[in-house]
Amino acid sequence: MTEIAPWAAPAARRRLQEVAAAVTNRTGPTEVAETVRAALAAHRRQFDDEGIVLYAGTNVPSSAALAAYDPAVSTRPSMGWPGEKYQTGLDHLDTLEVLAPLLVAERMAGRFAEVRLPSATMANLAVYRALAEPGDTVAVLPEAAGGHASHHAYGAAGIRGLRVVDLPYDAGALGIDHAALPGFLRAHRPRLVVVGASLMLFPHDVARVRAAVDEVGATLVYDASHVAGLVATGLFQRPLPERAHVVTFSTYKSYGGPPGGCVVTRDERLAERISLAAYPGMLANYDVGRLGALAIATAELGTPAGRRYAERCAGNARAFAEALHDAGFAVTGAGRGFTRSHHVAVDAAGCGGGEAAAARLAAAGIYLSAIGLPGQGPVAEGLRGLRIGTQEVTRRGFGAEHLRVVAALMRHVLLDGTDPAEIRPEVVALRRSVSEKDSTD
Amino acid sequence: MTEIAPWAAPAARRRLQEVAAAVTNRTGPTEVAETVRAALAAHRRQFDDEGIVLYAGTNVPSSAALAAYDPAVSTRPSMGWPGEKYQTGLDHLDTLEVLAPLLVAERMAGRFAEVRLPSATMANLAVYRALAEPGDTVAVLPEAAGGHASHHAYGAAGIRGLRVVDLPYDAGALGIDHAALPGFLRAHRPRLVVVGASLMLFPHDVARVRAAVDEVGATLVYDASHVAGLVATGLFQRPLPERAHVVTFSTYKSYGGPPGGCVVTRDERLAERISLAAYPGMLANYDVGRLGALAIATAELGTPAGRRYAERCAGNARAFAEALHDAGFAVTGAGRGFTRSHHVAVDAAGCGGGEAAAARLAAAGIYLSAIGLPGQGPVAEGLRGLRIGTQEVTRRGFGAEHLRVVAALMRHVLLDGTDPAEIRPEVVALRRSVSEKDSTD
Repeated sequence: MTEIAPWAAPAARRRLQEVAAAVTNRTGPTEVAETVRAALAAHRRQFDDEGIVLYAGTNVPSSAALAAYDPAVSTRPSMGWPGEKYQTGLDHLDTLEVLAPLLVAERMAGRFAEVRLPSATMANLAVYRALAEPGDTVAVLPEAAGGHASHHAYGAAGIRGLRVVDLPYDAGALGIDHAALPGFLRAHRPRLVVVGASLMLFPHDVARVRAAVDEVGATLVYDASHVAGLVATGLFQRPLPERAHVVTFSTYKSYGGPPGGCVVTRDERLAERISLAAYPGMLANYDVGRLGALAIATAELGTPAGRRYAERCAGNARAFAEALHDAGFAVTGAGRGFTRSHHVAVDAAGCGGGEAAAARLAAAGIYLSAIGLPGQGPVAEGLRGLRIGTQEVTRRGFGAEHLRVVAALMRHVLLDGTDPAEIRPEVVALRRSVSEKDSTD
Repeated sequence: MTEIAPWAAPAARRRLQEVAAAVTNRTGPTEVAETVRAALAAHRRQFDDEGIVLYAGTNVPSSAALAAYDPAVSTRPSMGWPGEKYQTGLDHLDTLEVLAPLLVAERMAGRFAEVRLPSATMANLAVYRALAEPGDTVAVLPEAAGGHASHHAYGAAGIRGLRVVDLPYDAGALGIDHAALPGFLRAHRPRLVVVGASLMLFPHDVARVRAAVDEVGATLVYDASHVAGLVATGLFQRPLPERAHVVTFSTYKSYGGPPGGCVVTRDERLAERISLAAYPGMLANYDVGRLGALAIATAELGTPAGRRYAERCAGNARAFAEALHDAGFAVTGAGRGFTRSHHVAVDAAGCGGGEAAAARLAAAGIYLSAIGLPGQGPVAEGLRGLRIGTQEVTRRGFGAEHLRVVAALMRHVLLDGTDPAEIRPEVVALRRSVSEKDSTD
């Protein structure tokens, strides 16, 4: 018998064995198809139809983008630029391969966009491959300040064999410690400096970071994975005009497109090196079927409706933060208006920590994740915060009035000690009461 | 205005500018959606409906697999094993995450399967990340012998900072030079030895390679990207029973599933390291939406119908090779029955080289690619061969009788000098005459 992860932790082992026991004797194609169909249907009902999804790292693509996604061409490798492809007969796909990067580069205020990579993690790896050599140093945000796995030793930076150092961070100010930065960079001489985080309540002072980065001749990378949809509509901040050398981002979170990762820059020399890292370095195949969806999502972000969607995401975040604060939660950034993005963070130390609080909320049908908070102890010992993103509920049609109800339901579950099972029917009723609409239509 | 690849070669520059000119003033979402729809429809007509696709690196998934692919969950990151996921509310997806690796490991005669990686290139990178350190040596097949980009310095091996050396190869025997191998390995002391190629006419003597690899304490990796569907059905060869430590492969070529890359092994220690390289090393997100399709495609390969599909792929390849030989082509492996896989290779030196021949065939509606041939000069100076894979035409319902007609049409285009435009109507008529059927149904 084959196995899955006998090295996993006990809770995972139990669950893996439980699921395996349910599928083990149903391995013919018809049975497998039934199992798959049932699992997907159950997931869709629980998560999409009945759940309130506040998880920051997801979204439902706009309906037009989703309609344009064509998995029938996903198995068609398209290697090289139009006009010099390794494959023949793919000329009509050239249109997608030109349209998507032209639109993405413009929308992100850059000149060149590499759009073929499957995820932002891989986009970050392409940057590391292109712009650093094994043994070089990269300076990144600490994990407790939302520094993404990509940028740490166990992630993309480690794959490239880079030495990773944490940037000086001011937990009280929720931002980079600008006073300490120049000396830090002189001491460590990083090849790359990476800002942008998985929790992004307030903008970075990119221009100020760039000035310090220039002193040591490093390259400044801004990972906009979470805030790309806001950046694309001119909200929050504009990393390239503010002088980041390179922006990487995920296309399916606030950006609202299909899965994927992009790299955008204004610098032709950097663009060429990153492009060569992507192909032929990392992509013998890539999913050309999603480029049409990416182009449409990008075009939508360039319209007044796209701008309104981003504004509503940010407005909903502020309203939700205030409602949570009023409900008795310790909302991060209380002294500064809580947030300027679509993210909200709650200190869950009083609710058993982030993981336990997220699990209780999940039992009530509210889905989000734990997150490290600046100033907490090592993230490996537990995540102190809860992270909320409003990009999906905003797309679904939630407004401030609905989010006030969600805050009250969260209070019942986390502060009043109500059994989550008692709250779940109210969550489902609220979710069903908000008629689904596509905010970029 | 944004740009695409001003550093590209002149032919690409011309094509990029031509396509850009056609889309530049149509950048609203409705116009973009129209452009995308039209491009995809034109592609489908030309390539899928009217083309004869002999390109080895593609396939159409089985209809049951394609039906199970759910892009609505592709934007749902699912990080960590079931039972300890970072995200909440994804419990129903656990079923896919258990079913797919259990089935894949069994089908490939392994114990552990890592199925979350987006491509075989990324599967290879996970192996390099897990089992080698920057500066280590990896010994791989030469590019002219089908050694894949993944394994060379500009690909995944280079990302990891590995030193790449070409294994000794016997061009006449179309295989590894076993006499030279032990001395070569002692001289280079590679950490990893990689076999398996993009042109795979005959099996490797895996057991013999393993014996030499054991002498230097290296790990033997078999990249089965092209032959995975045959391997899964017990044809061609079985790398793990033949004592490769690790098998990597692509799930959408002969395997007939959705895009993706897998790593399978019998060794728990290797499996754990590779799994940790995949997550959290490379995957903050991965497309759980394709795992159901992968599970179904895998289950199909385990049935008599799946075995018949693989046998028909191989039988069609032998019949096609004979027909091409009879038509006057220089078919590789003529003295050994041409092929034991679903691949066929033609020496196109007399037809202007592989690239020119592939372009002429494309103009006639026959799509394949050039390939390096063992014993040719540097691949950067041009590819001498044409590579054919029968996995797609077999799925479409082509048999030996149809492939004899294709061989004759190829003779007209490449040997008789007939204008490809004159041949194309015959290609389209032949393609349309073969009623599409799903060979695993």
